[in-house]
Amino acid sequence: MYDKNNLARLIISCPDKKGIVAAVSGLLYKNNANITESAQHSTPGEKPQFFMRIVFEIQGLMDEKKGIRIKLEKDLKKLSKDINMSYGVSYLRKLKRMAILVSRMDHCLNELLWLWKSGDIEVEIPLICSNHEDLKELAEFYKIPYFYIPVKDGPLNAGEGLKRHERKLLSLLEKENIDFITLARYMRILSPGFLKSFNKKIINIHHSFLPSFPGAKPYEKAYEKGVKIIGATAHFVNDELDAGPIIEQDIIRIDHDDDIDEMKRKGKIIEKNVLSRAVKWFSEDRIIEKGNRTIVFT
Amino acid sequence: MYDKNNLARLIISCPDKKGIVAAVSGLLYKNNANITESAQHSTPGEKPQFFMRIVFEIQGLMDEKKGIRIKLEKDLKKLSKDINMSYGVSYLRKLKRMAILVSRMDHCLNELLWLWKSGDIEVEIPLICSNHEDLKELAEFYKIPYFYIPVKDGPLNAGEGLKRHERKLLSLLEKENIDFITLARYMRILSPGFLKSFNKKIINIHHSFLPSFPGAKPYEKAYEKGVKIIGATAHFVNDELDAGPIIEQDIIRIDHDDDIDEMKRKGKIIEKNVLSRAVKWFSEDRIIEKGNRTIVFT
Amino acid sequence: MYDKNNLARLIISCPDKKGIVAAVSGLLYKNNANITESAQHSTPGEKPQFFMRIVFEIQGLMDEKKGIRIKLEKDLKKLSKDINMSYGVSYLRKLKRMAILVSRMDHCLNELLWLWKSGDIEVEIPLICSNHEDLKELAEFYKIPYFYIPVKDGPLNAGEGLKRHERKLLSLLEKENIDFITLARYMRILSPGFLKSFNKKIINIHHSFLPSFPGAKPYEKAYEKGVKIIGATAHFVNDELDAGPIIEQDIIRIDHDDDIDEMKRKGKIIEKNVLSRAVKWFSEDRIIEKGNRTIVFT
Amino acid sequence: MYDKNNLARLIISCPDKKGIVAAVSGLLYKNNANITESAQHSTPGEKPQFFMRIVFEIQGLMDEKKGIRIKLEKDLKKLSKDINMSYGVSYLRKLKRMAILVSRMDHCLNELLWLWKSGDIEVEIPLICSNHEDLKELAEFYKIPYFYIPVKDGPLNAGEGLKRHERKLLSLLEKENIDFITLARYMRILSPGFLKSFNKKIINIHHSFLPSFPGAKPYEKAYEKGVKIIGATAHFVNDELDAGPIIEQDIIRIDHDDDIDEMKRKGKIIEKNVLSRAVKWFSEDRIIEKGNRTIVFT
Repeated sequence: MYDKNNLARLIISCPDKKGIVAAVSGLLYKNNANITESAQHSTPGEKPQFFMRIVFEIQGLMDEKKGIRIKLEKDLKKLSKDINMSYGVSYLRKLKRMAILVSRMDHCLNELLWLWKSGDIEVEIPLICSNHEDLKELAEFYKIPYFYIPVKDGPLNAGEGLKRHERKLLSLLEKENIDFITLARYMRILSPGFLKSFNKKIINIHHSFLPSFPGAKPYEKAYEKGVKIIGATAHFVNDELDAGPIIEQDIIRIDHDDDIDEMKRKGKIIEKNVLSRAVKWFSEDRIIEKGNRTIVFT
Repeated sequence: MYDKNNLARLIISCPDKKGIVAAVSGLLYKNNANITESAQHSTPGEKPQFFMRIVFEIQGLMDEKKGIRIKLEKDLKKLSKDINMSYGVSYLRKLKRMAILVSRMDHCLNELLWLWKSGDIEVEIPLICSNHEDLKELAEFYKIPYFYIPVKDGPLNAGEGLKRHERKLLSLLEKENIDFITLARYMRILSPGFLKSFNKKIINIHHSFLPSFPGAKPYEKAYEKGVKIIGATAHFVNDELDAGPIIEQDIIRIDHDDDIDEMKRKGKIIEKNVLSRAVKWFSEDRIIEKGNRTIVFT
Repeated sequence: MYDKNNLARLIISCPDKKGIVAAVSGLLYKNNANITESAQHSTPGEKPQFFMRIVFEIQGLMDEKKGIRIKLEKDLKKLSKDINMSYGVSYLRKLKRMAILVSRMDHCLNELLWLWKSGDIEVEIPLICSNHEDLKELAEFYKIPYFYIPVKDGPLNAGEGLKRHERKLLSLLEKENIDFITLARYMRILSPGFLKSFNKKIINIHHSFLPSFPGAKPYEKAYEKGVKIIGATAHFVNDELDAGPIIEQDIIRIDHDDDIDEMKRKGKIIEKNVLSRAVKWFSEDRIIEKGNRTIVFT
Repeated sequence: MYDKNNLARLIISCPDKKGIVAAVSGLLYKNNANITESAQHSTPGEKPQFFMRIVFEIQGLMDEKKGIRIKLEKDLKKLSKDINMSYGVSYLRKLKRMAILVSRMDHCLNELLWLWKSGDIEVEIPLICSNHEDLKELAEFYKIPYFYIPVKDGPLNAGEGLKRHERKLLSLLEKENIDFITLARYMRILSPGFLKSFNKKIINIHHSFLPSFPGAKPYEKAYEKGVKIIGATAHFVNDELDAGPIIEQDIIRIDHDDDIDEMKRKGKIIEKNVLSRAVKWFSEDRIIEKGNRTIVFT
């Protein structure tokens, strides 16, 4: 319908007050933009904050000679000062570069790569990295470089082995100019040092309906508790284990006949769907973090 | 959070082109409006159409002396000519007036009245009308006038009895200045003449997942067909039976143990929830008809 | 289809071993029973336990002169000793007697009473009791005695006022020969002494997806956490707050536009449906407790 | 938990009357069987029919020397005559042999093969057959023989080309001793002659919520109709297009922003999940056909 070469996305955030929509839409109009999608949200409370996602089309947008983007970005910069606005603009022709980290389970990786090949998730995937060799063949089937970086010693989240693993990983991420990481059932806990060094978004899938059952063995805990519904949660990674801002969740009903193995089997389907949606939304600039919550313009 | 006295809703529809958002938001800004909610949609195709719903706040909006509404409506009228725009503006302090038509089943009426009393559906309900006396007590419990207008002869959708019924009904609707009708499992088919005379929106609940099983006995048909999921559909009424624009649908899973009675029992819960959502959305100006489809800004 | 006068339900539980089904079905066959429904479950693990629910029909079952029940119960007693079986038998003509406790919110009570009047929940309701007067009219509409027993002093779960309240309540429950209690958003915590004295099942609805957000203000906590799905949980009451065996749960999706009031509004629909299902299942002997889990034969 | 070598499944169907459960469970007990799962269903109506699925364990079941199966099958044959019972017995060690037919879309095949490799669907897959070459690589990744049998001429469901295609296919199916076929978005209509010759079950996935939108282009039809929920349906194939007994259905919510491409994208996820469940259930003898309905013991 629209020519992707001419499309851009604008995300803004600023203190809520009169005239923001008029100012932003006026700016876009003056830059010959046609707004194709638009969504906004205001947080309640004493200091209301305004959030907006706009997709727009400008003829000749990516033509360097025309200088359209330079003019647009200059205007946005000026407006951002006038109304105390944070913003980000992205161009649909420039895909985000995603690294995937995995361990041994294949369900999330298989789904992500299938969606990627189908064109349903539009990113570049320069690398898949793992502490195990198990998923090498799957990566090769999709012709994506697979880096096996074993972790030799230490417990889950410490030790010299992990440090070496993270150092190698960071160097790969930097070399490949990675924009964000997806943890597709990667079973190591990334260190605070790693998070600080990488300093970009990391999306994780946790195999429970958070905040219930964080940490290890959530299906076992859910079975013990006797819940009637299990779930999965995609969230941004921060310093606290399984406590970062939630992006998406989904659930499936279980009954007393479902033992832990059956819960895991059913759960895999939910996990891969939830993670896929989160990755797709992030790739399309649909997610804004606000404290420990997310605004998701679906 | 916001003072309802100062809130209004604007619905617009026009051929899609550059600058519409800028024009509308600029108009509102000049009228001192703060946009609190906004959603838009463009239909695909060769002649794209643009739709928008905006909720905004203007201090002193309902104060006759200030003339704010007169100014606003004048500006909107002017803009509507400039950009070939259809529009409607409504003020939250002025509730829509809904009539409910019922027959003998109480589940939809019970839910609507409970939600109305709870303040979850904000309308005025000047009258409930029925071709049976069964639900009189329920109406009285909620202190709403109940008009029993029996239909003496003729089949479901014809006969002198139905004509008399419809004439009395029309006169009641006119007298009470009714804005829209909700058919809460009303088991008569309103005649084309009635629809033409009333000439406002009528919301119906059909007890199947349309377009499957229109007409009578949908649960019986669903049982025969052996479907694994049943549903309910709220739609606007038009001249064709159970074929008007769909507003909302929902479903529930059944299995081979569910006989027709059990399907009806489970279905009632879905019917009342689907109808309630449709009525709530309509009362909040969230629904726009476009041909045989609806745009619903939830 | 079947004559309720001739129907009975048998619930059994025993260590799992060969021949149980043969023994029980043989016993029923010798008592001229036709099995109309049957479901079984074996818990996994080293000491597997077997559970079964059977509905059966015997001609003349309730005819005292024929002595059918005496013979049946004698045979069951004998078998229970032979295979170390716990069991319970109930007759469909004898409805369970349920007391409902409420405070001020009407959504759960309204739904339960509507389902009861519709014949969808088959119990006797000799009394509704509350620490507030708010829901008296609703009880009267359904012609059920409403007892207002105020709690004058003390915090939520202590104080002389609560003790008096519980003493009066216990005396009512005993007088009316109540079989089980349903807490339909009753906002007092029943004391361990009360639970011990009553010593029968109590079903509660908690307005969160347990084990997330137990205790007070779950919607507020869910909002803070930024979850994308909220839920409700029906469970048996035990000494630990909101931690008894879970009977049923359900959820609804929310998004960033839903503030706490909107979450409460959406949550009410889930709460009343979850509680209704739990009460219906209990009234039909579909629930077996096993430690902190429930087996629910739906 | 249980040793698969010792497990068998029994499916029975007979006119409903007293003593069936006792007779069957007695027979199993005498054959030293321990019942591990059991489910039953009686159809309502004047000539009630009884259906049962039992999973049982017998020590040494597959040991030819012990003759356990010969004895068991002899006893079943005798009982089947006594109570006019149809039955089928299968042994878990002997997997069903499934052929998969595909055209060009990969989503269903990819999911089925992933579940098969994961051990979640336990069948043998001796062959995948297609009228296109597109999915050859995917089959090779899972090391399953892929037969490309092009259809050269004629419309979708006729012509000499299709006849040749079906003849080759039948010869392959016979050679590989195939027990059932799964159509994983195979875009040819199998001829009545083929169905008659193959004479075993064929499972198809249709990309709509049947009976809505049978035949070609269901997403296009759903868009035109303006439905708010789309679905997918797995069913057994019979002579009538998309009208065979329904095995499983599922749905996903859409809104006015979802164009046909987006509906297809969302629909793929539903299609592959619904088909996978149907195939899994069939492989585990959970599905019984009864006229145009199915009984599914999940």
